[in-house]
Amino acid sequence: MPRFFLDYPAEDIITVRGSDADHIRLSLRMKCGEKLTFCHCGMDYNCIIESITPEEVVCRVDSITPTLSEPSVQLTVYQAYPKKDKLETIIQKVTELGAVRIVPFISSRCVARPDKASYEKKLPRLKKIAEEAAKQSGRGIIPEVSPLMSVSEAVEDMKKNDLSLICYENGGERLSDIVFPKSGSIGVMIGSEGGFERSEADAAVSTGAVPVWLGERILRCETCPIAVTAIIMNRTGNM
Amino acid sequence: MPRFFLDYPAEDIITVRGSDADHIRLSLRMKCGEKLTFCHCGMDYNCIIESITPEEVVCRVDSITPTLSEPSVQLTVYQAYPKKDKLETIIQKVTELGAVRIVPFISSRCVARPDKASYEKKLPRLKKIAEEAAKQSGRGIIPEVSPLMSVSEAVEDMKKNDLSLICYENGGERLSDIVFPKSGSIGVMIGSEGGFERSEADAAVSTGAVPVWLGERILRCETCPIAVTAIIMNRTGNM
Repeated sequence: MPRFFLDYPAEDIITVRGSDADHIRLSLRMKCGEKLTFCHCGMDYNCIIESITPEEVVCRVDSITPTLSEPSVQLTVYQAYPKKDKLETIIQKVTELGAVRIVPFISSRCVARPDKASYEKKLPRLKKIAEEAAKQSGRGIIPEVSPLMSVSEAVEDMKKNDLSLICYENGGERLSDIVFPKSGSIGVMIGSEGGFERSEADAAVSTGAVPVWLGERILRCETCPIAVTAIIMNRTGNM
Repeated sequence: MPRFFLDYPAEDIITVRGSDADHIRLSLRMKCGEKLTFCHCGMDYNCIIESITPEEVVCRVDSITPTLSEPSVQLTVYQAYPKKDKLETIIQKVTELGAVRIVPFISSRCVARPDKASYEKKLPRLKKIAEEAAKQSGRGIIPEVSPLMSVSEAVEDMKKNDLSLICYENGGERLSDIVFPKSGSIGVMIGSEGGFERSEADAAVSTGAVPVWLGERILRCETCPIAVTAIIMNRTGNM
């Protein structure tokens, strides 16, 4: 069923204008009486279209149910800024897999090093990718794409999580040895193409992050967050 | 350390000609006395370059060790043919993650439906992608990219495995409930954009494949094999 996100909790009637209304009317060619779902904060508002005009689509809320697709853990992926368009791929894939927040940051070995101003220009596109992936995969929320952080800001932000991990190529625990909670918040920090400096890994570990080692096979920068998100979702009973 | 694959077991001296020799000499600009690794059937031949001429590179085998990066399970990914260049992405990623064989096949709902002749034309490129990903990720073998199969041929081929799974969107066991062996062969069958017909899933199940369900979030066609390969490697103690 077509899926849209609301930035407010709905009452009995949802009136849609702008690009979502155009999409319902022109691309999906939906008619009165057809069903669609609006989503806000993990709740699904299951609706029936009451009227369609060029200006707006009016929908009646038929039932409200929790979105089944939301994982029981809140996973934040802290991703050192990768080259080319890999951040877009990562945002799309970890959204499908169930992350709730993506925090790009700049570390010593990042080759691509946008400043905060040029990142701000990219941010609407990154948020749009998260929204599209959330719609397509049936998520109950749009994952947040955060402002760009420094590595020390990201390490500080990681403290918010109930469990924090840093993927470190020089060794650490195996993901299969980590005892994952079935609820609460998890953060996982992942390097760019060049991985982390020892001092960066040490800083993360000193604030409580557990270093994890993914084994002998060297994963590409964009493969690592996808694989780790899938494994965490599996280990927490969410995939 | 630079890594190359041999299609024969090495003796004391390895003589390299052709594109690998050019790559060592011109791209990597390696010199006599430098170290590189040749790999054959999961064994690493750790070598020192003895001489370099425009025609050939001669290396002396210094030690032979099992490749540490090879998983303890042999995973075959049976992938229904996806649209665009997604098969290339899938081959690259599952190679990094540790699959030993990729079997593309045509099922009812495939949108892209190359015939066997046009697939044969693509095959050298697909094999090259597997080889490059194997080198980059430090694998001990180049995963095999098989000839194109029909869905019934793929179902028949799946019987070879000690454990066979089919990812089925209409339900099945959770991956976290599957008891994975730590060694032996595993096959996992994954649909294209449209998933499987019930008759196809039934045919796989009737030959012993276990249907698995990845949960409420709808994964894109290329996300599924990456996520499932990562989870299987984790569950079998290989990631």
